[in-house]
Amino acid sequence: MAAPQYQPKFEQDDYPSRTFSEPMLIRRHDPVIYSNEIDNAPLSEAQIAEYEKNGFLFLDDIFSESELSSMVAEMQSMRDDQDIKSREETVTERSSKEVRSVFAVHQLNELFGRIAEDPRLVAVAEYILGDRVYVHQSRLNYKPGFGGKEFYWHSDFETWHTEDGMPRMRALSMSITLTDNDDTNGPLMLVPGSHKTYVSCVGETPKNHHVLSLKKQEFGVPDKASMSELIEQGGIVTATGPIGRIVLFDCNTMHGSNSNITPIPRSNLFFVYNALSNKVTQPFGHQPPRPEYIGARQSIRPLKSALFK
Amino acid sequence: MAAPQYQPKFEQDDYPSRTFSEPMLIRRHDPVIYSNEIDNAPLSEAQIAEYEKNGFLFLDDIFSESELSSMVAEMQSMRDDQDIKSREETVTERSSKEVRSVFAVHQLNELFGRIAEDPRLVAVAEYILGDRVYVHQSRLNYKPGFGGKEFYWHSDFETWHTEDGMPRMRALSMSITLTDNDDTNGPLMLVPGSHKTYVSCVGETPKNHHVLSLKKQEFGVPDKASMSELIEQGGIVTATGPIGRIVLFDCNTMHGSNSNITPIPRSNLFFVYNALSNKVTQPFGHQPPRPEYIGARQSIRPLKSALFK
Repeated sequence: MAAPQYQPKFEQDDYPSRTFSEPMLIRRHDPVIYSNEIDNAPLSEAQIAEYEKNGFLFLDDIFSESELSSMVAEMQSMRDDQDIKSREETVTERSSKEVRSVFAVHQLNELFGRIAEDPRLVAVAEYILGDRVYVHQSRLNYKPGFGGKEFYWHSDFETWHTEDGMPRMRALSMSITLTDNDDTNGPLMLVPGSHKTYVSCVGETPKNHHVLSLKKQEFGVPDKASMSELIEQGGIVTATGPIGRIVLFDCNTMHGSNSNITPIPRSNLFFVYNALSNKVTQPFGHQPPRPEYIGARQSIRPLKSALFK
Repeated sequence: MAAPQYQPKFEQDDYPSRTFSEPMLIRRHDPVIYSNEIDNAPLSEAQIAEYEKNGFLFLDDIFSESELSSMVAEMQSMRDDQDIKSREETVTERSSKEVRSVFAVHQLNELFGRIAEDPRLVAVAEYILGDRVYVHQSRLNYKPGFGGKEFYWHSDFETWHTEDGMPRMRALSMSITLTDNDDTNGPLMLVPGSHKTYVSCVGETPKNHHVLSLKKQEFGVPDKASMSELIEQGGIVTATGPIGRIVLFDCNTMHGSNSNITPIPRSNLFFVYNALSNKVTQPFGHQPPRPEYIGARQSIRPLKSALFK
């Protein structure tokens, strides 16, 4: 398979948001699966069809037990590392000061850097996005027990497009669960089929929105009527499952999670892969881009290809 | 079955809380099931054993469909009633001003008054508590969709004892679910077996605590180590299920719920039955009692007995 040619970016904004005074539902203008060849695909035909239809897919048994143990150990040691705790890449819970997320972990940590480039992951990302890929964002989410707060419904693409300048829907996330997740500890909830509709949100973005939005999103939030419609059509699927499960989801799939009062944390390692042809430009919103550690801009580095020659 | 004699209240406090600087686990001093006779019991032997062991029980198919429809309609009309909205019995969500709970619904609403006295419910309460009963508290919980907030872990008895002066563990709650509850809309979570341990909480109660605590509990909150221990021993059971399910639980069973970002509300009708021999006295904490609509004191009225002659 040859890497496709670089596509010129659109001048017109097909995915406006935080611009109009009323919310709007916009049909997706982009493919979901960018590759056509089924032979040698890193996913089965059924998996590809499921991802295309639902906008997400669970992948189990990718990592060995010992790989998972190393990741968990590394995650724990990062949480307790005072140097990490004081970095700007680290976000704490509003009330408890416990670590909520650490960004750019593929750069801050050698192991997580290796995993981001793991050919098993890169092949899947390259296949779906039909291109070579780079890491747009990475993070560890701790979601501590005893009061880890909710993440309200959102499409990542709405933020990446508006705040980071990502042109097209040609990116995806892989969330590697590093705790057993059941129905009680605030698991990720996804809305099947929602990736095919773009919810244009209401309200201007305030300056330095990311400082607060990473703790609690208040702009770029879909309206209730749109969410009700999407959920009425698609329902809600809960990403519960054993440690090691990879939740693979499209950049525009609506997702969120409830709070977690149980003692069990819900931690995951999170990589966003973007197609190399879909590099960020200037933000489509009216604010300067977010910091580099939240969305790669200067430091874009194509990952070693697993599919393309 | 004859109603037992009135028992004099204990002078000593067997269940101190918000008094010491360290949390403490205290073994329950009271029975869970106060009746011995199995013949003519309104619950099966297996149900009784389950309640005794776990501290809760689900009862299905008590109400007919038409009874449930009436309750749902009444609940909705109360939520939209401006008079109800402005009453002190009504608690709104911190951020949205949506109605979170309405207290004393057995007095404010004729239908809910009748249901509180329904012999099917009263018989169960009388059997478990081995006494005639009255309504210590009633409420409608709306838990609206799109951001209904969490209720942190708590034992109701800890509050009723400390803030209302309920002497013994001889009360129970019935939560009648008025929406279908699944794993995504913040269902009630219960800790099996936790009713046999009293967690003495840390910290003095501030004045007028109930004004805030009904929105977000911050005192009378069990510590993390105790909760971890209870959950390690008993696990967590989620009270999901169809509309109409009654969750019957002991006054000391630890319970709580996560937030609810889904569009689906999680509403229930809630009655607290207390044994007539267990009427509230002066609070065991150091604050004046909470208002009448939160804990009956002046207006205690025994319900027509369904078991005792």
